[in-house]
Amino acid sequence: MGIDTAKAGPEGGKPDGVAISLPKPGVGGTMSVTSALLLRRTEREMGSKRLSRQMLSNLLWAACGVNRELGPFGAAGITAASASNSQEIEVYAALDSGCYLYDPGKHRLLLVHAGDVRSMAIGKGQSGMGAEAPLRLVYVANLERFKTAGFQEPGLDDPEIQKSYYYVDTGLIAGNVYLFAASQGLSAWFHNCDKAGLEEKLQLGKSRRILFGQTVGYARS
Amino acid sequence: MGIDTAKAGPEGGKPDGVAISLPKPGVGGTMSVTSALLLRRTEREMGSKRLSRQMLSNLLWAACGVNRELGPFGAAGITAASASNSQEIEVYAALDSGCYLYDPGKHRLLLVHAGDVRSMAIGKGQSGMGAEAPLRLVYVANLERFKTAGFQEPGLDDPEIQKSYYYVDTGLIAGNVYLFAASQGLSAWFHNCDKAGLEEKLQLGKSRRILFGQTVGYARS
Repeated sequence: MGIDTAKAGPEGGKPDGVAISLPKPGVGGTMSVTSALLLRRTEREMGSKRLSRQMLSNLLWAACGVNRELGPFGAAGITAASASNSQEIEVYAALDSGCYLYDPGKHRLLLVHAGDVRSMAIGKGQSGMGAEAPLRLVYVANLERFKTAGFQEPGLDDPEIQKSYYYVDTGLIAGNVYLFAASQGLSAWFHNCDKAGLEEKLQLGKSRRILFGQTVGYARS
Repeated sequence: MGIDTAKAGPEGGKPDGVAISLPKPGVGGTMSVTSALLLRRTEREMGSKRLSRQMLSNLLWAACGVNRELGPFGAAGITAASASNSQEIEVYAALDSGCYLYDPGKHRLLLVHAGDVRSMAIGKGQSGMGAEAPLRLVYVANLERFKTAGFQEPGLDDPEIQKSYYYVDTGLIAGNVYLFAASQGLSAWFHNCDKAGLEEKLQLGKSRRILFGQTVGYARS
């Protein structure tokens, strides 16, 4: 995806920069859940082959896309559960052309940073692995979302409880990515990221916590 | 499963009480990953219909069963990723007959407590929902496992980093359960649990942290 430039100021809300439509997610995969579970594994070495736009679209939808208009507590439902359906985990796609926030509601990408931050979407000690992979997802908790969750349980205000929720909810999305990847012959690897580097580069504001990364690509051919 | 009684003292290691073999996990499910993602949702109301032993076996295997003998860092690989393949999340199955630790390596259940703790495997404010469901999974982090993980990264000693890992790893397993449930026509609901009540009842020792629960069953007919 060739994007020239844009500015996004996502304090609290969504970035208001360039929006890129994704193709409608396809339902073409036929591999069974059981077969995907048999194949589920972490693969750290990947080649540089790119994902097609359709594959990227399908992958992001599998991660946390809308699968029904009416989910819990009046909000749309997505493929991954979240605490009181707060949908507080944001998924950013770090591609060579830039770093984009996935907007499940409109199934599109919003440009957050026009540079390549893939080398920061991995822990410093692990940067030698998967370095050529076309895509690194970055998981970010948007704490503002807890304030508007459909069910206002007391724990949503407690920083320790918030932590337990946003990490679990990251795992729920990352698990979808692992199984989708297994079903499509993609490699996937969930890992740490350079939080300080990404914070400085992406400027996502005080209400967001950069948590983890996940590399996705094809096996080296 | 009718179990009379047993005593298990799982400080650090596995309980050494009664072991119950599970049927070999089946590979019968044919629903595709994409179809399961379309159906993935949280269902809180369930009836009392039991899961067959085969279904329980398949479900636990899907959650975190062994899917290859050689996974990362020399240990067996399981269906859910974990930090440095530490496999620190233990899954307990609370059934009417007792509470059992799932042992993925031998694909069996180990009796931990011979009473019905399902009513404690849910947050106190939510106990009215799913109360008849036949199964509640309890997610427990065994911190000892970080000491023997295949890759000894420094973070594995840091309580805050441990926390981020064990919550994410819980989500990775719970996500498998959600997708498996969707693929089998089962209902699933990830939720809090009565940690203090379960700690007192199960006596799992200081190295374990009781984290969350997940109810699984069939829709009320």
